[in-house]
Amino acid sequence: MANISKKVSWSGRGDDRGERTPLLNGAEDGKYNRHVLNFVFQSLDYDNSENQLFLEEERRMSHMGFRCLETRRWVICGLIGFLTGLIACLIDIAVEKLAGYKYSAVKQNIEKFTEFGGLSISLILWAVLNSAFVMVGAIAVAFFEPFAAGSGIPQIKCYLNGVKIPRVVRLKTLAIKVFGVICSVAGGLAVGKEGPMIHSGAVVAAGVSQGRSTSLKKDFKIFEYFRRDTEKRDFVSAGAAAGVSAAFGAPVGGVLFSLEEGASFWNQMLTWRIFFASMISTFTLNFFLSIYHGKPGELSSPGLINFGRFDSDVSSVSISFRGVLGALFNVINYWLTIFRIRYIHRPCLQVMEAMLVAAVTATVSFAMIYFSNDCQPLGQDNTEEYSLQLFCADGEYNSMATAFFNTPERSVRSLFHNPPGSYNPLTLGVFTLAYFVLAVWTYGLTVSAGVFIPSLLIGAAWGRLFGILLSTITSSQSVSAIWADPGKYALIGAAAQLGGIVRMTLSLTVILVEATGSVTYGFPIMLVLMTAKIVGDYFIEGLYDVHIKLQSVPFLHWEAPPTSHWLTAREVMSSPVTCFNRVEKVGRIVDVLSNTSTNHNGFPVVAHTTENDEPGKICGLILRSQLIVLLKHKVFVERASSRLSHRKLQLKDFRDAYPRFPPIQSIHVSQDERECMMDLTEFMNPTPYTVPQETSLPRVFKLFRALGLRHLVVVDNENRVVGLVTRKDLARYHLGKDGLEELHLAQT
Amino acid sequence: MANISKKVSWSGRGDDRGERTPLLNGAEDGKYNRHVLNFVFQSLDYDNSENQLFLEEERRMSHMGFRCLETRRWVICGLIGFLTGLIACLIDIAVEKLAGYKYSAVKQNIEKFTEFGGLSISLILWAVLNSAFVMVGAIAVAFFEPFAAGSGIPQIKCYLNGVKIPRVVRLKTLAIKVFGVICSVAGGLAVGKEGPMIHSGAVVAAGVSQGRSTSLKKDFKIFEYFRRDTEKRDFVSAGAAAGVSAAFGAPVGGVLFSLEEGASFWNQMLTWRIFFASMISTFTLNFFLSIYHGKPGELSSPGLINFGRFDSDVSSVSISFRGVLGALFNVINYWLTIFRIRYIHRPCLQVMEAMLVAAVTATVSFAMIYFSNDCQPLGQDNTEEYSLQLFCADGEYNSMATAFFNTPERSVRSLFHNPPGSYNPLTLGVFTLAYFVLAVWTYGLTVSAGVFIPSLLIGAAWGRLFGILLSTITSSQSVSAIWADPGKYALIGAAAQLGGIVRMTLSLTVILVEATGSVTYGFPIMLVLMTAKIVGDYFIEGLYDVHIKLQSVPFLHWEAPPTSHWLTAREVMSSPVTCFNRVEKVGRIVDVLSNTSTNHNGFPVVAHTTENDEPGKICGLILRSQLIVLLKHKVFVERASSRLSHRKLQLKDFRDAYPRFPPIQSIHVSQDERECMMDLTEFMNPTPYTVPQETSLPRVFKLFRALGLRHLVVVDNENRVVGLVTRKDLARYHLGKDGLEELHLAQT
Repeated sequence: MANISKKVSWSGRGDDRGERTPLLNGAEDGKYNRHVLNFVFQSLDYDNSENQLFLEEERRMSHMGFRCLETRRWVICGLIGFLTGLIACLIDIAVEKLAGYKYSAVKQNIEKFTEFGGLSISLILWAVLNSAFVMVGAIAVAFFEPFAAGSGIPQIKCYLNGVKIPRVVRLKTLAIKVFGVICSVAGGLAVGKEGPMIHSGAVVAAGVSQGRSTSLKKDFKIFEYFRRDTEKRDFVSAGAAAGVSAAFGAPVGGVLFSLEEGASFWNQMLTWRIFFASMISTFTLNFFLSIYHGKPGELSSPGLINFGRFDSDVSSVSISFRGVLGALFNVINYWLTIFRIRYIHRPCLQVMEAMLVAAVTATVSFAMIYFSNDCQPLGQDNTEEYSLQLFCADGEYNSMATAFFNTPERSVRSLFHNPPGSYNPLTLGVFTLAYFVLAVWTYGLTVSAGVFIPSLLIGAAWGRLFGILLSTITSSQSVSAIWADPGKYALIGAAAQLGGIVRMTLSLTVILVEATGSVTYGFPIMLVLMTAKIVGDYFIEGLYDVHIKLQSVPFLHWEAPPTSHWLTAREVMSSPVTCFNRVEKVGRIVDVLSNTSTNHNGFPVVAHTTENDEPGKICGLILRSQLIVLLKHKVFVERASSRLSHRKLQLKDFRDAYPRFPPIQSIHVSQDERECMMDLTEFMNPTPYTVPQETSLPRVFKLFRALGLRHLVVVDNENRVVGLVTRKDLARYHLGKDGLEELHLAQT
Repeated sequence: MANISKKVSWSGRGDDRGERTPLLNGAEDGKYNRHVLNFVFQSLDYDNSENQLFLEEERRMSHMGFRCLETRRWVICGLIGFLTGLIACLIDIAVEKLAGYKYSAVKQNIEKFTEFGGLSISLILWAVLNSAFVMVGAIAVAFFEPFAAGSGIPQIKCYLNGVKIPRVVRLKTLAIKVFGVICSVAGGLAVGKEGPMIHSGAVVAAGVSQGRSTSLKKDFKIFEYFRRDTEKRDFVSAGAAAGVSAAFGAPVGGVLFSLEEGASFWNQMLTWRIFFASMISTFTLNFFLSIYHGKPGELSSPGLINFGRFDSDVSSVSISFRGVLGALFNVINYWLTIFRIRYIHRPCLQVMEAMLVAAVTATVSFAMIYFSNDCQPLGQDNTEEYSLQLFCADGEYNSMATAFFNTPERSVRSLFHNPPGSYNPLTLGVFTLAYFVLAVWTYGLTVSAGVFIPSLLIGAAWGRLFGILLSTITSSQSVSAIWADPGKYALIGAAAQLGGIVRMTLSLTVILVEATGSVTYGFPIMLVLMTAKIVGDYFIEGLYDVHIKLQSVPFLHWEAPPTSHWLTAREVMSSPVTCFNRVEKVGRIVDVLSNTSTNHNGFPVVAHTTENDEPGKICGLILRSQLIVLLKHKVFVERASSRLSHRKLQLKDFRDAYPRFPPIQSIHVSQDERECMMDLTEFMNPTPYTVPQETSLPRVFKLFRALGLRHLVVVDNENRVVGLVTRKDLARYHLGKDGLEELHLAQT
């Protein structure tokens, strides 16, 4: 039935403790990185190491102490929400201003040249302006912080899943990200400013909750209790939620996004804090934007994007047989990304590609507007800020220009809300096609950019197109009235397209419902999103998952593959395991840690290993990071006599070293010291989770995923260590086309 | 620092495996049941027993098979949503009709007598009508199914928490519940029809998912795979969500309610299914109600309750220093409930109390209307259906009557939306007070009834009162315009009152936001709910928690008490444990199961116990229910020779017996058979979760709660069984006023 199509070859590193035969890694055997897990990714230690130091601290703390901690958590979440809201506000205003200048300049230019000819100069002006903006943004990203590229959502997904992506929550990344997204949106690329907000929120959270910045070398000496992965990850989920909330004005959607992507064990207090952060974030953005727009106290812009309100009587559950277009997007983008990884890896090339795309975007837009002769009468209540007359008669405007000569957010809103008859079908068809190509090409460029808005725009365009065609067909019948509003089809189409691309069902429904402010559309939107997901999944995974896979991240899904019940911990685990004794020789510890071929991060501590590699009884688990701190502070037993002079090692020492523990190479251990012994009893986690060898994979998976573990010790029925299960051991099983598949593990 | 104020005394039963000295139970030593856990409550087996039978079945199943299962789950969720929606529809229409008849009759009567005097006859008519309705409802509940009393939310909370409340998800309970709630709402009690919907949804889910009804003795032979606690509990959470969704038109709120109350491990697919059920439920209700109201296709009544839409500019974050009123409600109701449990336990008395309350409600309402002289002009757009002129001039109506002479839902809507000036402060003040007393008295009566609407009504009344007073104070200033709409204060007040009573923060915010259809109010509502919760928690727990505690249910909260780090598994566990051998004598099994003083439900299976009670090495865990099935089918080893004639025991046999396994007394085992042996290997769960003795309580708690366990085996470092941790061992630690407290365990 189920069969493993690829038997694994292994070069045991990373979290993994096995020493299997190293083999060609994926890239070398020509398979590229499709069936490979990259072992440079480490996991987060979501499970507290409950060693003696920790327990002593917790026991010393009074009930009041815990209350204070809890209060501090709330304060931090409030701060996260506030700062995220501010950043969103900054991005919004900057983009508005810059895009305003750009479009005004180009519009004046076009108007000047329309009558005399010479519109090519306008085109050049537009293209140059676009390229200039994009160049600045792309340079910042490509040369200063490549991790700020893209929307950042895949990275945040991974982080919330428990994978430590290097540099992803740094202050520098945030700065470049914000700067980059302003440039790329102002540069007229087919991108949105929403995706990066989620990343920004996460970075803010990681920074604020630690009470210090390593980049700025500043330690405020506050929130020291929160300096560990468990707490940090919780705050980062609050930050991501605040980001979603600010981007879409959807606080509940934000909470659900965080939970959908990041939750393992649902914790009520945590969820409330996340919700609080989201609320504050929406509120802050709303507050400052309404001040900026000169209407303080009106609070009418709850999010960066605002679709406007729909009347609440949807009368038709639109059929949506698609998601195919979403899948097509992902397939093309997948190949494009592989192409990029292969050939465009030099920063200069990346910047040039970005500029090229910007110029092409301008050219295509211009061409479309130029050749379109779809003139619409200029209404009284015209919402277009930059309506172009071009070759139209006086009192009319070019309708193609409303779609192209505008920020994408505004275009989406026009498509949703403009009265029937504002667009002719041909315009929409051509626009959809052109914008689709541009958006696919754009996502994955070395600029910070989101994919939400372009997807919505494409979807809205063909949704409206579909609506128009449908109303044409049914116009002869009496039902036509209720089928008449193509704006609703635009909404449904936008949902379908976005769902087909990103494949988030629950949170996306809520986000769209909140962004449109109407519960009534929830049901059709949900149906459409589900259809899109089912259809899309048939072809390829969601865009974010594609990108996560391309980076070979060991991502743990919600459940083990259904047909994996015949695998047990014995087959899954890595073995033999490098163990330490309770009292271990310093030399051996240094040697093991320095061994780059087995870059292990967690070591079971056993009662006493006999010489002949017979496994010992488990009595604890210690992490590489803990050992490093111990070595650094030279906590050696032979120094017991001089111990009084040394202060006792405290949790504070571990927290100070967090999160960038020094590499083993930077710690000097003299030959004398190598002969000393180290007593690990006080520092190891004495009660690591264990499973027997016969445990089935789904059961192991459930325990691992529910508790956010990093290492799970496999024991025999004498409680002797026989193996260790880590994230990679579980992530490498996945359901392929023909049953269970196993991924390679290699450095790509 | 932390201290245990009550050292436990124990009569080991239920899930608990300990044989401690039985002591006076709580009731006898005069403490009543305040510090006691009732051991009649069993836990659900949320953790799959992954025995050989189970694994074989899973391994036999192809990928396609799992797909089918998944599809079936979706179908069931759809059905659950559909049926729940239908029930909501039925309740709504029935209540509407009955209340309509009643109010018309009374109104005619009042109008007849207003001019001639003799209004006492109207009063009597009203009181008699009310009492009659309530009597029918109360008789049904008190005599036929006492478990249908109340809102059912505490019971569903417990069920989702993992406690098996007897009879709570039976078909009969559902029927009585629906009938009862129609009677009590039509009878004019201060109750709502929303709470019972949640219970109804849960029952529907439990019924549909099992594909059979034991009450009706009908087995449809479908969905047999889902006949175990794991699946059933998942479906019940979907049902509860569908109930919330139908009651409030809040599908997202429903999902969050289920998660807030029931989730342990967040599972994405499950959440989507829950969401699907909620959506279908809202949609069904909406669809049928709009047909009923003669406007098919308009879908304007998304929930049983509909607050109408608010304009989306809230301009003031109202201060709310309360929650005190909510706490007061709970305190009074707490004492009242204790009084009821003590003195009013005969069904006749209960029915009579309910009738008394109904009559008093009518009398108080009548008196209030009679003595009120608050006349308001009858507007053009008057929404009151039963506006009473009474002693007012022509063209005016009695404003007290809009509050009392109406279903509570309509009253709430009037308070939210009627234009400023509709009520005078005195009316509101008196109304609040009177209705508060009535509502407190009503909740806990032996009728099915919800507490949401009365709470909202009280809150709305004093919120509006507060708003009016505030606008009077600030009327001289220029800001008065934005403080002017008292309807918004009513909304905020309603949120505060409800939050103070039920203390659900996240889901309640979303429910209220969805019910009012405005995201903008989310932030103030959340702030108010949080304040109400914090203030209220200072005095007493939420109403549902109070009732759960009064029933001494071993309820597991989200986390262990913070100051419990100094407790370890060793102190928490029950020991010694009754273990079985892998191959055990039938006689011993029967004896252990029949021992009523140690009514254990799970037994560790050990490799071989030595005679002198030295603990054996763990090799599995078997449940009472499994043993019962084995005994019933006489799966004895000595019969190995005749085995070929017997068919092998299959999972189906266990499923057929689920969920009402026969008691051990009903199984006859002959003296010969007692000497036989039973091989448990195939049926026990070979990989139960274990923890070492030194594990701290929070860590044990986390594992237990996250995986929804029922039994957690405590082992020493030789893997020998030394104790067993069950729900009651964890639930009995809670944070009291002066540190950690431990509850008694007894049969109350």
